[in-house]
Amino acid sequence: MARNTKVAADPNAPPVTRTLAKLVATHPSRGWSDDVEHQAHRTFLNWVGCAIGAARHDSVEATLAALAMMKPSPQSSVLGRSEKVDMAGAALANGISSHTFDFDDTHLRTIIHPAGPVASALLALAEVTGATGRQVIDALVLGVDVSCRVGNMMYPEHYDRGWHITGSTGTLGAAAGCARLLSLDEAKTTMALGIAASQPIGMREQFGTMTKPFHPGGAARAGLMSALLAKNGFTASPRAIEAARGYAQTVSTKNDWNEITDQLGQRFEIAFNTYKPFACGIVIHPTIDAATQLRDKGIKPADIERVELKVHSLVLELTGKKEPKDGLEGKFSVYHGFCCGLMVGRAGEHEYDDAFVNRPDMVELRRKVVATVDDSISEESADVVAVLKDGRREHVFVKHSIGSLERPMTDAMLEAKFRDMGEPVIGKARIDAAIAACWDLGNAKDVSAVVKAASSS
Amino acid sequence: MARNTKVAADPNAPPVTRTLAKLVATHPSRGWSDDVEHQAHRTFLNWVGCAIGAARHDSVEATLAALAMMKPSPQSSVLGRSEKVDMAGAALANGISSHTFDFDDTHLRTIIHPAGPVASALLALAEVTGATGRQVIDALVLGVDVSCRVGNMMYPEHYDRGWHITGSTGTLGAAAGCARLLSLDEAKTTMALGIAASQPIGMREQFGTMTKPFHPGGAARAGLMSALLAKNGFTASPRAIEAARGYAQTVSTKNDWNEITDQLGQRFEIAFNTYKPFACGIVIHPTIDAATQLRDKGIKPADIERVELKVHSLVLELTGKKEPKDGLEGKFSVYHGFCCGLMVGRAGEHEYDDAFVNRPDMVELRRKVVATVDDSISEESADVVAVLKDGRREHVFVKHSIGSLERPMTDAMLEAKFRDMGEPVIGKARIDAAIAACWDLGNAKDVSAVVKAASSS
Repeated sequence: MARNTKVAADPNAPPVTRTLAKLVATHPSRGWSDDVEHQAHRTFLNWVGCAIGAARHDSVEATLAALAMMKPSPQSSVLGRSEKVDMAGAALANGISSHTFDFDDTHLRTIIHPAGPVASALLALAEVTGATGRQVIDALVLGVDVSCRVGNMMYPEHYDRGWHITGSTGTLGAAAGCARLLSLDEAKTTMALGIAASQPIGMREQFGTMTKPFHPGGAARAGLMSALLAKNGFTASPRAIEAARGYAQTVSTKNDWNEITDQLGQRFEIAFNTYKPFACGIVIHPTIDAATQLRDKGIKPADIERVELKVHSLVLELTGKKEPKDGLEGKFSVYHGFCCGLMVGRAGEHEYDDAFVNRPDMVELRRKVVATVDDSISEESADVVAVLKDGRREHVFVKHSIGSLERPMTDAMLEAKFRDMGEPVIGKARIDAAIAACWDLGNAKDVSAVVKAASSS
Repeated sequence: MARNTKVAADPNAPPVTRTLAKLVATHPSRGWSDDVEHQAHRTFLNWVGCAIGAARHDSVEATLAALAMMKPSPQSSVLGRSEKVDMAGAALANGISSHTFDFDDTHLRTIIHPAGPVASALLALAEVTGATGRQVIDALVLGVDVSCRVGNMMYPEHYDRGWHITGSTGTLGAAAGCARLLSLDEAKTTMALGIAASQPIGMREQFGTMTKPFHPGGAARAGLMSALLAKNGFTASPRAIEAARGYAQTVSTKNDWNEITDQLGQRFEIAFNTYKPFACGIVIHPTIDAATQLRDKGIKPADIERVELKVHSLVLELTGKKEPKDGLEGKFSVYHGFCCGLMVGRAGEHEYDDAFVNRPDMVELRRKVVATVDDSISEESADVVAVLKDGRREHVFVKHSIGSLERPMTDAMLEAKFRDMGEPVIGKARIDAAIAACWDLGNAKDVSAVVKAASSS
């Protein structure tokens, strides 16, 4: 027999489910600044590039093999590939591929990777409904706003507890975006959010396995299905997010409801999205950036006697692997990161393959890097001195890495990253067309230019 | 930047994911007592009946309309209907219909309704793979064991916190059952459980909406997909259930690991499954049972001067609605429950339609029932005195209601309940055949006899 005991329950929480639904259903198209509009296109472009980049990874192969057992209708495209599957399957597959390299976007305040759940659901749905590019961008901005505001409300307790916040908030963002794309009214959008609220996805224990990228993929699919159910009359609690036994109070003991309403419809969280220039954990980025700056000064690996690297203790705690043995270990090595920057001026997915990690000149250079902890240096910074064989000491201090909010990647850098990931998969001609189609999405009559270029069907 | 703070984390939890996977992958077919085997058939039969009964409910209509937007392949049957959809869609739809009337099975210790997630996934998958009935029963026993043992481990904290435990443990049970049906080895079964562990579904706030029955349906679909992904090489953490940032420690602060291993492979939780004789909350059942006994003694509504009903305080707290106005309110009225028993000797779904609740003789009889709280009486009991117009006092004390573990429904009662729900939907001939096919499932060459009779395609 169940008891009525309440745990951490606040029965008087404000009606945030309805508040978010109202925003999603009624906010004007392109009702935001040019900066927000541009950031939405950057988010979309970066997401497409990441999805193409990992399109032939084992995680995607396994997903498509599982979906094929359902004999899906060829409704929607899988980026970087020739297969089409039903829209829910495409949302799943593209969400998985876009997060497989851990190279997608980051909302730094919550460490949510917002595009995976939302954009994956939207592109798959838009192919079926024939939505305009304008509608897709509108839905992307609003969907990401829902995920990230819910994240702001619960972070950090929710994440600390074990939830992979990208998937656990992403279902709501994807449902919101799809509700907008389907032009659901406020009442049905409330239902879509309500259905989605019963489906948070993802535990941090899965990091390092294919189930990590499954989280945004699963969230995309669940959010899309929630919107389709709501469109067809399925019901949920209109207080599903905030109620005492609803989503937020069940999955987090920190719930700052004001985060939902603060400047709602005026400030858009997608404006704070960032993009990784380097294919590894973000604490390594300032060090790679510093190494790249040394390289730009003309310093070569052969000049190096010793490297004195000072970083915050967290950096070595998370990425202190001194002698990585393969690509995956390389991702957890600030030493390897530095050497990528100095040796080749970049740290993309190619610099994390096993062969590159084990290249003799990389191994030799890594052994010259001495890292020490200095907690007077922020986690977002790195202090590097290259001691050269001729006795010179070259000093670089990176306060904020390239890719941070303070020093965002330029559009040209995003394009270069896109090419770097995508060209080996679908070739230069398609990549040229895909980049152009992504930048033009807000004006496009539908998503056909994007999917024609970015898939290989 | 994420912190490494740990909340309620036990890094040394025993390897229960692997332990459960080993049971599922290696336990011998029919490796249990005749009682367990019989209970598995009762569970399956009751589940089929509930799914047929609600097959034309709005919740199922909305689900099928949403699924139709994906143009699914006609792989698997929707019980009580003519449509076929892909196997994941059938798992979803049958899981939803089987829980829509809240009339399905109950594992009393955890209040899990175990069949919905597990059987819905299995039947849909078995139609595609051509599994034998023997394989389906084996997978049902083992899948239910996984759900309920995980429930035993976390109940009650997990439920008190807000999780609808049927859906939040059901994904694991469905994944386990499907892994067994697919003959996955121990390693791949571990992966299936791991993928499923990232997808707990369901919050209690949804009670009273269609999203409540969505929970077992969504769990069935998610568990089935987890097994298909694992079969095709998708990976997850082999400690996904027990790890510090895994499923159990993220969704519950009570984790009694011994509940997983205690008599594992010897005691099967399906043996403790129960079936509702009445279509309302279980606290009303002893009262309805008492009323039915009075009716069997020949007492008629016209004889009644007054009814003195004594029950535990929880009964009135949960179901104290004195003057219910419609069918749904009737489900929360112990007064209405008593009157159903005395008036017609039953309380099926028909006795909870609006017209019956408002029938003048029912309204009149209800007003004669005086309920008082007596906490010396267990929640599982009811004490009733019918004071008759001729002055006689007829006393009935029900210690355990029919349908409890102590006084289980007979097979004949289960069949009568099945007919009562199913005949209005698909007719007597199909119901006769469906009942026979359910009892014979363990010997059947495949599930075709069940689905042929129990759907109307």
